[in-house]
Amino acid sequence: MNAIYPGSFDPVTYGHLDIIERAAKKVDNLIVAVLNNPSKKNTFSLEERIDLLKEVTKGFHNVTIDSFSGLLTDYAVEMNCTTMIRGLRAVSDFEYEMQMALVNKKVNDDVETMFMVSSSQYAYLSSSIVKEVAMFGGKISCFVPEVVELALKNKFEGGL
Amino acid sequence: MNAIYPGSFDPVTYGHLDIIERAAKKVDNLIVAVLNNPSKKNTFSLEERIDLLKEVTKGFHNVTIDSFSGLLTDYAVEMNCTTMIRGLRAVSDFEYEMQMALVNKKVNDDVETMFMVSSSQYAYLSSSIVKEVAMFGGKISCFVPEVVELALKNKFEGGL
Amino acid sequence: MNAIYPGSFDPVTYGHLDIIERAAKKVDNLIVAVLNNPSKKNTFSLEERIDLLKEVTKGFHNVTIDSFSGLLTDYAVEMNCTTMIRGLRAVSDFEYEMQMALVNKKVNDDVETMFMVSSSQYAYLSSSIVKEVAMFGGKISCFVPEVVELALKNKFEGGL
Amino acid sequence: MNAIYPGSFDPVTYGHLDIIERAAKKVDNLIVAVLNNPSKKNTFSLEERIDLLKEVTKGFHNVTIDSFSGLLTDYAVEMNCTTMIRGLRAVSDFEYEMQMALVNKKVNDDVETMFMVSSSQYAYLSSSIVKEVAMFGGKISCFVPEVVELALKNKFEGGL
Amino acid sequence: MNAIYPGSFDPVTYGHLDIIERAAKKVDNLIVAVLNNPSKKNTFSLEERIDLLKEVTKGFHNVTIDSFSGLLTDYAVEMNCTTMIRGLRAVSDFEYEMQMALVNKKVNDDVETMFMVSSSQYAYLSSSIVKEVAMFGGKISCFVPEVVELALKNKFEGGL
Amino acid sequence: MNAIYPGSFDPVTYGHLDIIERAAKKVDNLIVAVLNNPSKKNTFSLEERIDLLKEVTKGFHNVTIDSFSGLLTDYAVEMNCTTMIRGLRAVSDFEYEMQMALVNKKVNDDVETMFMVSSSQYAYLSSSIVKEVAMFGGKISCFVPEVVELALKNKFEGGL
Repeated sequence: MNAIYPGSFDPVTYGHLDIIERAAKKVDNLIVAVLNNPSKKNTFSLEERIDLLKEVTKGFHNVTIDSFSGLLTDYAVEMNCTTMIRGLRAVSDFEYEMQMALVNKKVNDDVETMFMVSSSQYAYLSSSIVKEVAMFGGKISCFVPEVVELALKNKFEGGL
Repeated sequence: MNAIYPGSFDPVTYGHLDIIERAAKKVDNLIVAVLNNPSKKNTFSLEERIDLLKEVTKGFHNVTIDSFSGLLTDYAVEMNCTTMIRGLRAVSDFEYEMQMALVNKKVNDDVETMFMVSSSQYAYLSSSIVKEVAMFGGKISCFVPEVVELALKNKFEGGL
Repeated sequence: MNAIYPGSFDPVTYGHLDIIERAAKKVDNLIVAVLNNPSKKNTFSLEERIDLLKEVTKGFHNVTIDSFSGLLTDYAVEMNCTTMIRGLRAVSDFEYEMQMALVNKKVNDDVETMFMVSSSQYAYLSSSIVKEVAMFGGKISCFVPEVVELALKNKFEGGL
Repeated sequence: MNAIYPGSFDPVTYGHLDIIERAAKKVDNLIVAVLNNPSKKNTFSLEERIDLLKEVTKGFHNVTIDSFSGLLTDYAVEMNCTTMIRGLRAVSDFEYEMQMALVNKKVNDDVETMFMVSSSQYAYLSSSIVKEVAMFGGKISCFVPEVVELALKNKFEGGL
Repeated sequence: MNAIYPGSFDPVTYGHLDIIERAAKKVDNLIVAVLNNPSKKNTFSLEERIDLLKEVTKGFHNVTIDSFSGLLTDYAVEMNCTTMIRGLRAVSDFEYEMQMALVNKKVNDDVETMFMVSSSQYAYLSSSIVKEVAMFGGKISCFVPEVVELALKNKFEGGL
Repeated sequence: MNAIYPGSFDPVTYGHLDIIERAAKKVDNLIVAVLNNPSKKNTFSLEERIDLLKEVTKGFHNVTIDSFSGLLTDYAVEMNCTTMIRGLRAVSDFEYEMQMALVNKKVNDDVETMFMVSSSQYAYLSSSIVKEVAMFGGKISCFVPEVVELALKNKFEGGL
């Protein structure tokens, strides 16, 4: 089984890495697919997000980093891979993810989403909370790998 | 009993129609009231939203389409109809709707909100998710009536 | 519109009375229907629960107290009244009530459940919590009418 | 990838069959594993539950029916298959399932649970609600396959 | 024990006052700390929010009003007070607050958040809902103290 | 400030110890109060639960182990300590705890409950899940201290 792990990864956190590592053990090939949504204001550019992902996943031999725009279901067909992986952290996640999984299945019945529960130590970790802490110079080494920590510091250097 | 079914209806979906059809069977007259909120950016104009609603509800003899601005409780008094109908889909809906129902009752004690549970096949359907799919040319015929599907295609034609 | 408000009412609390009072203002006739479920161990007998309800609702001219056993949907058909009223307090309520409303509608498509939100001061009140407090002699006058308070005291008198 | 779909299946419903059918498309072999828990009072015996599952899954060439007792993680090791499949319906499901997935992973780090979202038409379907309806002679043909419907009728025939 | 009650207070409501009054009875000194976040668009300026808080808390001898910017955990260290107080109203609150409490503890292990449950009559009250009602001239005297009511009327006077 | 941490502790887990340790840092004296509820079937006797708590908290100089029966609010008055501490793990916890906190406050207005969020690594840990794992000989050393692990092994030795 191959699978796609789609997301914004703005930037990748230890929470994402936890899902990547555990999913990669279960599937033949895992494509981490960065959403290129020009109408959404991201902190990191598409290229930066891809580069950080490549850097932190270089130890996994069956993980590829890619990007997509438009509908996830169209990308799934194009990649000939209709199994999606998503992490679940909390109840609020659950309802949104459930909606997306059901809608994606309506748009293309072959597309199935398989959810994995975030490891408990990352249960309440998100890219936006990490950026909020980084913005004010707080300690973020327990939330993201070193290369991401540096990228965040460079991004917010010189104040807001 | 007469009742008001208030909402944005931007645009009306099969989820809304399901509530309209079921509520119309239970009440004498049902007023579907489109919120005219100029400070909120809608995809369809007030007129377009009203026209689409009129089109898709023309088979119901006891359903009227209207619009309102300002406080729902003031509109209720003006229409001499203090029973509101709202659909409930998920837990996130529930908390927001509960807050609004309690606040409306505080502002005007006569105003009561009666909730109906969305039919399960529409449990995770919303106007915004339909627009997200339509924007990228995805299949939306299972989410909205044909006339709305056409309106959405015209709206998003020519790209984003 | 007539409506049925079904429940165990073991015993009736101010939370139930709040729903009864508000629903009675909206419908022509309200039937409060006590579930007679011999396989469930109730604190009060069916007769006691009916008597307490009759006592505390005697001021409402359009409220009748009745009982039923078996399927609620069968009772609805028998009474020629397919609108159910239920109160919603919290998220846990919501999921169970949603399940019951959807199942009842599957069993009989005419049966619709209309939900009313509990007034905030009764948001976390339940028959079982009242009994737990009463059992140990705690103050319950803010949870139930006086006649129910007395009935609970008699029930638990002489210890557990 | 092989996977285990564990559960009580007391009895199997269309909700379970939906997960089985969709999971079977994604994995090489799917083992549906019936929990043999003598301390829990089931309506159907282990043999009856297995037989009903065998009957309703006989069209799937890569689905096997098995049973287990004791810890799911021990069974996973014994079967040399550490991927579990579970369906998610509602928020209450989610918290319990999340707890079990995290605990199973603590007990054996190789064991991963992959969740699939119930199709919306089965979102509020459970074995216990089906039994409650069947017990009083309600219509259950939209909840379970015909053979299960018959088994339920035989079980509850002659009253409670 | 001293404690900090941080928030936006834009403007203070009876819900906030309820927490302040109950927390002040339990701690030696309570610092109500208004978040000065220039990137967030507030209805009232920092000075206005502080003034309103000072006015409505002047009856409490052990309550001080202060403000902070940047990380709450840095402010906690600066004030030599690592106990935070927060109110909990609903499930949606709970998940966000849980995330913030866990993140703050990761950033500074000494920082602990103690939650108090909102009194039930204020369970669904928020600054934003009060502003929404006030904007259209609705009755808000049951949501905020008189001085805040006046401030809101002045703010929205002359239309939107 | 003194505080009471009430519970069943059947048996104490690392989740409870986490709350005890963090609460003990914030209050002058912490009373861990074991509920003696003869109508509830516990795995460990009141004495065993107290002994295990004494053993695992002997390193905390300001923690006392006690027990109570009847209403928590009566015990609070008797101990002259009206601040309760409770841990919050998940949404299902939250609603039950909120109900209990509101009811206790209604019964005695002085009684306040302060909630602390479980550390994320213990977010889904409960006494009952530990017992379920222990019953079948699963690894529980990451859930409970060694002395509790031994007590559980002795309890379940010889099979079910």
